[in-house]
Amino acid sequence: MPKQVDHRERREAIARALWRVVEQRGVAHLTVREVAREAGMSHGQLQHYFTSRQAMLTFAMDFASEQTTLRVADALQPFGDRPHPREVLRAMLMETLPLHADARATSRMSAAYVLEALHDDNVHARARDGLVQGRALVEQLIRTAIADGFIQRDRDPVAETNLLLALTGFTTLLELDVITPQEVLTAVDQHLDGLFRNDGSA
Amino acid sequence: MPKQVDHRERREAIARALWRVVEQRGVAHLTVREVAREAGMSHGQLQHYFTSRQAMLTFAMDFASEQTTLRVADALQPFGDRPHPREVLRAMLMETLPLHADARATSRMSAAYVLEALHDDNVHARARDGLVQGRALVEQLIRTAIADGFIQRDRDPVAETNLLLALTGFTTLLELDVITPQEVLTAVDQHLDGLFRNDGSA
Repeated sequence: MPKQVDHRERREAIARALWRVVEQRGVAHLTVREVAREAGMSHGQLQHYFTSRQAMLTFAMDFASEQTTLRVADALQPFGDRPHPREVLRAMLMETLPLHADARATSRMSAAYVLEALHDDNVHARARDGLVQGRALVEQLIRTAIADGFIQRDRDPVAETNLLLALTGFTTLLELDVITPQEVLTAVDQHLDGLFRNDGSA
Repeated sequence: MPKQVDHRERREAIARALWRVVEQRGVAHLTVREVAREAGMSHGQLQHYFTSRQAMLTFAMDFASEQTTLRVADALQPFGDRPHPREVLRAMLMETLPLHADARATSRMSAAYVLEALHDDNVHARARDGLVQGRALVEQLIRTAIADGFIQRDRDPVAETNLLLALTGFTTLLELDVITPQEVLTAVDQHLDGLFRNDGSA
């Protein structure tokens, strides 16, 4: 089905153009017209692929999530079929935070989507669903790590999951050059050291 | 100097109007015109108090920081002259995160300012300065808590400071109703338990 493939490719090219608008000019400039210009097509041509700003934005967000998942999988490849849960959590954080160009693009896309969600109920529901699913994945991973003895049994899997997700707060500190990428790595490793520490108490 | 007081009061009223625009309609609607309308004055009247959008935005951000500092001081009052460092850190997090209406207003103001900083060098410099100062305050508090024996000496004050600041990432989870305020309190307390834990190893 080459036609469908082409359709998908064009939609992905538009999504990347949308990311560039968000990254370089900010969410205030995120209009269908700006994205069409950045993608090198007319407003009418773009509407052939996305019938609304919201449809375009949601596809761009879904595509950003997919790309992040692929980068996490790439980062975990050296660790084989059953990577240590610590490596999985570390890779997820590394690829979610704006520590390199690709991650910065998807991180800013995600921030723009959250911002849109505050004033659009449909986007709110979708953004929430995405985060709830991501959160459930992390919680399952932590529960398994506790069951497998990697994390002590006295740890609360819900609170530990929430703390890990909260570390996405490094995004602002990185974007404003308050702390360096190396300091983020040190802090993340220290947090993971604490989570996976075995002090023999349980 | 009643005239100066009145000038300050009008500027604060405008800052609050700006917060309401950000909170209720989003940063995309943050124009001088919208703020003037929300403040119940003409564009020309507003320009008597702020000669530029950026001056208005920066005043509104500084005012939000002041209000947050006052709320932290209020929260610490029951603990007397020398509150336990744990209570200080907890109060700072509680009043920074959008856990109640006043904190949500200043939190959204802060998010809008960070967003503006990504595409405006002057705002970037000011936002960075504010965060660097806030960070230095937390680091000093942690260093003192280590010196006073509240936190173990083997803890790295820089990494612990950065982890505490990263917990502002709860903002997104709260704004999108992914986790409840109670779950945030539980997770924050668990993090502080870990930070202030004395396991006798150092």
